[in-house]
Amino acid sequence: MGAGLSGLVAAREIARAGHSVAVLEARSRVGGRMLDQPIAGGEVVDLGAEFIGPTQNHIRALVDELGIATFPSPNEGQNVYLAGGRRMAYSDTGPTGTAPPDLALLTDLLLAIPQLNSLSLRVGAEAPWDAPGAAQLDSQSLETWLRRNSPAGQRFMDVARAATRPIFGAEPRELSLLFVLFFIAASGDERTVGTFERNFNTRNGAQQDRIDGGTQQIATKLAEGLGRRVIRRSPVRRIVTGRGYVDVISDRYVNRARRVIVALPPVLAGRIRYEPALPSLRDGLTARMPQGHLIKIQAIYERPFWRGDGLNGSSISDAGPINVTYDSSPRSGAPGALLGFVGGDEARAFTRLSRDARRRAALESLARGFGARARDPIAYFETDWAAEPYTRGCPVAIAPPGVLSTYGRALREPIGRLYWAGTETSTYWNGYMDGAVRAGRRAAREVLERL
Amino acid sequence: MGAGLSGLVAAREIARAGHSVAVLEARSRVGGRMLDQPIAGGEVVDLGAEFIGPTQNHIRALVDELGIATFPSPNEGQNVYLAGGRRMAYSDTGPTGTAPPDLALLTDLLLAIPQLNSLSLRVGAEAPWDAPGAAQLDSQSLETWLRRNSPAGQRFMDVARAATRPIFGAEPRELSLLFVLFFIAASGDERTVGTFERNFNTRNGAQQDRIDGGTQQIATKLAEGLGRRVIRRSPVRRIVTGRGYVDVISDRYVNRARRVIVALPPVLAGRIRYEPALPSLRDGLTARMPQGHLIKIQAIYERPFWRGDGLNGSSISDAGPINVTYDSSPRSGAPGALLGFVGGDEARAFTRLSRDARRRAALESLARGFGARARDPIAYFETDWAAEPYTRGCPVAIAPPGVLSTYGRALREPIGRLYWAGTETSTYWNGYMDGAVRAGRRAAREVLERL
Repeated sequence: MGAGLSGLVAAREIARAGHSVAVLEARSRVGGRMLDQPIAGGEVVDLGAEFIGPTQNHIRALVDELGIATFPSPNEGQNVYLAGGRRMAYSDTGPTGTAPPDLALLTDLLLAIPQLNSLSLRVGAEAPWDAPGAAQLDSQSLETWLRRNSPAGQRFMDVARAATRPIFGAEPRELSLLFVLFFIAASGDERTVGTFERNFNTRNGAQQDRIDGGTQQIATKLAEGLGRRVIRRSPVRRIVTGRGYVDVISDRYVNRARRVIVALPPVLAGRIRYEPALPSLRDGLTARMPQGHLIKIQAIYERPFWRGDGLNGSSISDAGPINVTYDSSPRSGAPGALLGFVGGDEARAFTRLSRDARRRAALESLARGFGARARDPIAYFETDWAAEPYTRGCPVAIAPPGVLSTYGRALREPIGRLYWAGTETSTYWNGYMDGAVRAGRRAAREVLERL
Repeated sequence: MGAGLSGLVAAREIARAGHSVAVLEARSRVGGRMLDQPIAGGEVVDLGAEFIGPTQNHIRALVDELGIATFPSPNEGQNVYLAGGRRMAYSDTGPTGTAPPDLALLTDLLLAIPQLNSLSLRVGAEAPWDAPGAAQLDSQSLETWLRRNSPAGQRFMDVARAATRPIFGAEPRELSLLFVLFFIAASGDERTVGTFERNFNTRNGAQQDRIDGGTQQIATKLAEGLGRRVIRRSPVRRIVTGRGYVDVISDRYVNRARRVIVALPPVLAGRIRYEPALPSLRDGLTARMPQGHLIKIQAIYERPFWRGDGLNGSSISDAGPINVTYDSSPRSGAPGALLGFVGGDEARAFTRLSRDARRRAALESLARGFGARARDPIAYFETDWAAEPYTRGCPVAIAPPGVLSTYGRALREPIGRLYWAGTETSTYWNGYMDGAVRAGRRAAREVLERL
C-alpha cells in the first residue's frame, strides 16, 4: 500500500511474477512526494523529488526502461555564496571545488567533511545499528560533533546548518551523528563509497540530472502499467492479520491479501491501527523517526535571467529563509525557474508567517543571491510537505540521537505477513528516489520468496 | 477525552462549574497508567503509578479530598548497591545520603548532580524552550554532557544509566540535556526548587508515600463522581472541528461538543485524525516525543523477608535486567512485594526473551540484591506499558535532542477548540500523578474561560 514510487515498484515486481496485487493509495493521485506543477509554455516544475545523480543506478534504469528522458541539470556559470552579509560568486571547478572560497570556513570544512566521510566507512549503509561503536556514535548529535571538530567555529556552523536544512529538513542538533554517518555511507552504491558532498553537489552529485517533463510521470507510467490494480482515494486505517491472511481496511474497501507491503515512511505507518498490535520495537520506531521539515519554493521567471549574469542558479546562504537554491528550469529554459529550500528552523519560522510575508521573505532571499529581478516572478509555488496529512514532512525520516542504534533494526524487518518498503527503509540512497526503487524491489523479493 | 487521571480531573472541574461534559475512554476501565492488581490477603499492588512525595501538593490534596488514605513507603533498613560485581548495603542516612558510598562513583556524582541541579534553575519548569541558551542545551544528549562532566567515567555512567532507565524509561543517549534539566526543574513546585535526587529518593523524595489500597482507586472514585459522563470502550479515531462545534468520533459514538480536551500523551494524540489537519508544529511534536520504555515487575512473597535482613527493599544495580527496586508491599506487610524496574536498553532486550526467560532473569536480578529467597515469589507480575496500544510506553514522554527547544511550545498551546491535558503537558511534576492533576486543572481552566 502507498502508490508512491516504492509501493508502485514493489507492486510491479509482484505483478510481473504472475501474482495478484492491489495498491491502495490515500490520495486521488499517485506519486507521493513526486508532484508536477504545470507552468507557462506547457512545461512543468517539480514540487517534490526532482534530481537523480551518479550511483543512483536503480532509478536511472527504471527511468530508461519507462522511456523517460533525462537531461543534465543546468550548471553553466558560477555559484553564489552569501555569508556574514557578504556575497561572492565562485566557480565549482575552482581550487576549492564546490566549497566556497571563504577562509573563515575552509579550514573547518577541509577538516570536518573528510573526517565525517571517513567515519561513515565504519558505519556503512547496510546495518548501522551493528557498526562498531554504534551506541557511542548514536549518543551524540551532529551539532555536538561539529562543535568538537571545528576549531574555527561559527561560520562553519552556519554553513553546516545551511546544508542540513535542505538535505534533512533539520538542524544539526536534531540529527544523530550515527544517522548522518549512515546517510553519508548510503549516498553511494555497493561499489562506490558514499560522500557527504555527493548529497549536496550538482556536478557529479545528487543534483546532476533532471527528468524531462517532471518526476511524477515515473509514478504515472508505473501506475498505467498496473492499471486497475491501483486503487486511489483509499486511505488505509487498519491492518488485521488473521490465520493465513491479512485484511487491509481502507475508508472504502476491505482487501484480503496473503502478504502486505506497507510502503510508507515510519511516521505514517505508525498511524495505522494494527491487529494484533505491532511489537514495541517497531511501534517505538514509528514514534521516534519523524520526517524532516522542508518547504520547497519554485519561483518562475520569463527567462533564467541569472544565466546571463554568468550564474548557474546554485547558491548557499547563511541567512534564511532560503538557504540553498538550484536552477530548476525546464530543459527548454523557457520559462526559467529557481528552486529554494526552506528547512529546519527556517521552515518552522516560515510557517508562522502570513502567505504574503512568506512570499516576500522567500523572494528577498532569492534577490540577495540573484539580484532585484528575482523579486518579480511570473509564478510562485510553495510546497510544505509537513502540512500534508499523507506525507507529514520531507525529504526523509530523520533520527535524533539514541534511535538508530536501538530501533533501527525494526526499519525493514518483516513482522508476520507485513513487509516494509519506502525510501526510508533503503540501504543505499535512503531518502532519495533511488532508495525508493531499491526498497520496493527488496520488499517485493521478500514477499515473492514466501508466496 | 481519556479517562486517565488528567482527563478525569479536567472533567470534574468542568462538571463542577455547571457545564455538561463527557469523558471518552478507549479501554473498558478508567485510570490509564494507574492500575491495581489484586494479590493474596485481599491486598493490591500497583502495576503502574504508585508513589507520591513532597511538593506534590495537587495529587496530595486530591487524595485527601477523596478520602483515600496514604502511608509512608516502607523504608526501614539499608539500601543495596550492586556495581562491578560487588554488593554493598548502606544506610541512606549515612554521610553520603542516598548516594552509595562507592569511591569509584562519588567524585563524579558529587560533581555532576549538583551541577545538573544548578543548570536546571536556568531552564525552569514553565517554558524550557524560552530559557537562555535553550537551543544549545537542547543540542546535546545527557550522555554527551555526562561524558564531558564526569572525569572518572565508566562507573558513574553505569549508575547514571541505572537511574535514567526507571525515571525516563530511556538511556542517557536518548535524552536531550535541556529536557532532563526541565524535568529536574519540574520536580518541585512554585516555591520549592526541583532536584534530580527528589525523583529518585524514597526519603524526602518522589517515592515517599503510598496510596493505601492502590492508586487506581483515585481514578475509580473520580469516575464514580462523574457517573454516566464517563463513556468506556470508546476509542476516539477522529476529531472534526466545524463552525462553532467539534465532533469527536469514536468507534461507538459521535459526540458533539463546544470544546475538547485531549488528555493523552503526544504520541497517542498524534494517532487520532484531525480535520482540519493540525498545524505542522503540533503534528511534528507528536512524531518527536515518544513514551519511554519501562517495564514494571511486581514479585510477591509471603512476607517482606528482606526486612528481617535489615534491608529496606531499595536497591540500585549496574547489572540488568532490573536496575532499581523498591519495597512495594501493602501497608499490612502481608504479603510482601518487591517492585523492579526494567527500562531503556534493558526493556528492549527483555521483550525479546521468552516469558520463562524473562521471569528467570528478573528474579535472578532480585536474588542478587536480596538473596536466594527472592527466586521464589508466590506471584509474579510483569507490566510492559509499551505493548499497550492505548498507552505505548511509560512512565512519561521523553524528548531527544533538538525537540523541546523547537516543538516544545506546542505541548499545551490550544488549537482552535482543542485543548491539551495529560501529565506530559504539565509544568511541575511532568510525568507524575501530580503533573496529571495539574494539567487537567489547567486545561479545564482554559476551557472554562471560553465557555
